[in-house]
Amino acid sequence: MVFQIFSNCIGTFLFKDGKIAAEKLFSDDQIISYHDKVKEGKEIAPEKDMLSKNAGAEVLRGKIPPGPVLKQFSEAKYLKRMREASIIITKREIAESVRRDHLIIQASNNIEETDKVINNLAKRLREWYELYNPEFSKSIESHEKFAEIIQEKSRKELLEEIGLKEELSMGAAFSTEDLEPIMRLAAGITSFADLRSEQTAYVEKVMKDLLPNVNAVAGALIGAKLLARAGSLEKLSLFPASTVQLLGAEKALFRHIKTGARPPKFGLIINHPLVSRAKSSVRGKAARMVADKISIAAKIDFFKGEYHGDDLKKELEAKLR
Amino acid sequence: MVFQIFSNCIGTFLFKDGKIAAEKLFSDDQIISYHDKVKEGKEIAPEKDMLSKNAGAEVLRGKIPPGPVLKQFSEAKYLKRMREASIIITKREIAESVRRDHLIIQASNNIEETDKVINNLAKRLREWYELYNPEFSKSIESHEKFAEIIQEKSRKELLEEIGLKEELSMGAAFSTEDLEPIMRLAAGITSFADLRSEQTAYVEKVMKDLLPNVNAVAGALIGAKLLARAGSLEKLSLFPASTVQLLGAEKALFRHIKTGARPPKFGLIINHPLVSRAKSSVRGKAARMVADKISIAAKIDFFKGEYHGDDLKKELEAKLR
Repeated sequence: MVFQIFSNCIGTFLFKDGKIAAEKLFSDDQIISYHDKVKEGKEIAPEKDMLSKNAGAEVLRGKIPPGPVLKQFSEAKYLKRMREASIIITKREIAESVRRDHLIIQASNNIEETDKVINNLAKRLREWYELYNPEFSKSIESHEKFAEIIQEKSRKELLEEIGLKEELSMGAAFSTEDLEPIMRLAAGITSFADLRSEQTAYVEKVMKDLLPNVNAVAGALIGAKLLARAGSLEKLSLFPASTVQLLGAEKALFRHIKTGARPPKFGLIINHPLVSRAKSSVRGKAARMVADKISIAAKIDFFKGEYHGDDLKKELEAKLR
Repeated sequence: MVFQIFSNCIGTFLFKDGKIAAEKLFSDDQIISYHDKVKEGKEIAPEKDMLSKNAGAEVLRGKIPPGPVLKQFSEAKYLKRMREASIIITKREIAESVRRDHLIIQASNNIEETDKVINNLAKRLREWYELYNPEFSKSIESHEKFAEIIQEKSRKELLEEIGLKEELSMGAAFSTEDLEPIMRLAAGITSFADLRSEQTAYVEKVMKDLLPNVNAVAGALIGAKLLARAGSLEKLSLFPASTVQLLGAEKALFRHIKTGARPPKFGLIINHPLVSRAKSSVRGKAARMVADKISIAAKIDFFKGEYHGDDLKKELEAKLR
């Protein structure tokens, strides 16, 4: 007598003459481990009880039984279980589709949002604080430093720094109660500035791990922003250099196509030091060269090539000198 | 012999026969205290040295000396000092023009901004966290609670709450390093939610002190927003009730005027519980009545009338029942 053991995503079955003679259905967890094993090309372990039950008989494992197999699974209970298994496996696939480049994108988007938040709140803070101390606010440009210093020093000290007497200031007298919400807002801004640096450190770390070449050529934040625009490392690596050059300048590009306005010369990479520091007459050229190297770096990173970041950067700097 | 002592904003002068015989110029601080005293209608203290120097003579104080006085001050040093004094006094006036209603406006604007910030960051947080735990995010609506609970409980616990096993989730496996920036963002949102409640408490407190009647009828936050739209308590008190009713619906109002679209029935006061809870057929009427009472309350508050908040509120509730 010939038995055949056959496994699919819902369980292991013993076929006899093309019919299911015994079955052992998988639990949810087993469905996942079966799926993982199949994916990795591993052998599925034999079901011991099935073998022992049929001891002495010749058991062929893994061979597809003769006759229309699918028909054997047309019973409602199998179909229902198959549907469940499909959902479980799909969920598993979704979970596994999250890659670290997605995390860089999230963090990079969050940094941009945090920048906006700090900017908007700092403007509010200044407007509010200027009722109390208008002269000092104008003397300091950085929002973050401003939020910090007004928490640390009194109005008197701050005015002395810019050579003014408190009595002669245009600032109103504030009670402690009225000053408190201002200081609380300043503290909020400071803590957001800290959040921003932590997120930046995270992006820098993951960029270095995952996109070492892009990181070396473009810098962590610009690289992360390009990645976010592209949507994934795979997409970024498939872009031609000319696309990389204009990522972030889509509006200007389509305006050019639509109305014939002057085409943009650079997108996000304008923030790259080699581009922003270039003379305006050669800035377009510099952008093209930087984009070239970033594009090469992205291809190396996607195909897990070796680290050539320093070489690429040196070449770039030599060309631009 | 008759001497006359005469003070103006730059100093005290002893006039003899219509000419300046002696002078004592004010320091910057004295200019301010002179200005304050004049403003309060207080008597200016006599300059003792001037009196003692002229002991025996008849000294007339405060009387304008005979002859063209201004001409005596046409010397450059007096003119320069007068210009300085004007600036000092103007600064003083600017400092004093800040009233507590301005602070309510600042705080109220800041609360609106903070709301926006929390909303935007929470959306980012959810998008990011959903890579890790998609099923849970959908089960909780409040952004603030969401940010709090994901910091407190592990994914396993959260999934158990909604009856799911961690192994069967669509969420990706995250390393601690990758999870950290998410948690840090959640902490940032929580701290901003705290900031918001503190600012709200401040607005409530100052509204109660400064606009007790508006506070009772409109509630602190709606009252503060109306105040912010109006620009000051004085302006709010001068508005007719119909303007109060439409504050915050300017866009719809001008669309109505320009294109003949349907006129708006309410602006900011749609958030008032008596308006928002009214049936939609009578919501316009309710808005009108609420605006009526707010307008009365603002007038009482501006002219520092007595507290009638509870009466106004009772009348309003009785009418709307």
